[in-house]
Amino acid sequence: MKVVFLSVLLEMVCAAQEVEAQPSVAELSGQWRTVYIVSINLEKLKSNGPFRVYLKKPLSDDELGTVDFYLYARCKGNWEYKHIMGVKQDDGIFAVDYEGENAFEVVHVSKTILVAHNINVDKHGQQTVLIGSFVKVNIEEEGLQKFKQLRQEKGIEEENVVNFIETDD
Amino acid sequence: MKVVFLSVLLEMVCAAQEVEAQPSVAELSGQWRTVYIVSINLEKLKSNGPFRVYLKKPLSDDELGTVDFYLYARCKGNWEYKHIMGVKQDDGIFAVDYEGENAFEVVHVSKTILVAHNINVDKHGQQTVLIGSFVKVNIEEEGLQKFKQLRQEKGIEEENVVNFIETDD
Repeated sequence: MKVVFLSVLLEMVCAAQEVEAQPSVAELSGQWRTVYIVSINLEKLKSNGPFRVYLKKPLSDDELGTVDFYLYARCKGNWEYKHIMGVKQDDGIFAVDYEGENAFEVVHVSKTILVAHNINVDKHGQQTVLIGSFVKVNIEEEGLQKFKQLRQEKGIEEENVVNFIETDD
Repeated sequence: MKVVFLSVLLEMVCAAQEVEAQPSVAELSGQWRTVYIVSINLEKLKSNGPFRVYLKKPLSDDELGTVDFYLYARCKGNWEYKHIMGVKQDDGIFAVDYEGENAFEVVHVSKTILVAHNINVDKHGQQTVLIGSFVKVNIEEEGLQKFKQLRQEKGIEEENVVNFIETDD
């Protein structure tokens, strides 16, 4: 009896170890850039496709369970800066209203890379699976110090610094 | 006499240690993004200014001593993708023909950050000092593997991957 119990316990422990810890949504916040998106349905990814999306900065709120995506997407041939909101469901997947309904899941997130899985159902009821990878813009402290030092050496005030990552238009 | 000679030698060694090794131009190649640019002359950096430049990828050639800059800049209100070439001079500074003449110097370059100094002399003879910092888009192998694994699990062919960093338009 004891042996059976221990064996079951051991299986449970092993199974738990195999499941990757759920990524912290808080890590999502920051400046991210789209690297790759893949789908069987390339119509959604072509130049004017709705998922030709250049991510800028998602902002996540762990308490509210929301993610605000800020991104560029094409709309009738022109680039548009869009704000799209995702709401976390009980299963950890975000419900996102964009080009139909989406179930957006963070598969892997670290300080530098984000891998996400999305199922879109468009207004015609067509289902499309998309997988995206995104890279975080990390600015190394040592380099920032060199920049600051050089600016001071040249006698230029801090207020004259233009931030291109935040104002990226 | 010996003491004086040793003291001079010691001073020379110390001075040599203070000088930072010249950055390798080969490290310049890759996908970079503009983070900050600073100048006393903000006219050059305002929304339609010639140095409101979003760097994409410089390609350097150590043997030829050239750097090819690919970047976006505004031209009469529209974004233009530009190719600008720099030629290395004997002093290690690049001569670049863009909005007048430029002396472009790499001050610091690592695997993640680039700090550069530029002196522009425009067609009216006005001199402007600019300092820029740029961040490299590094894609972590672990994250790439997760993306690949997920793509394979979903049965999507590699040829369906859209590279957003390379086709960033």
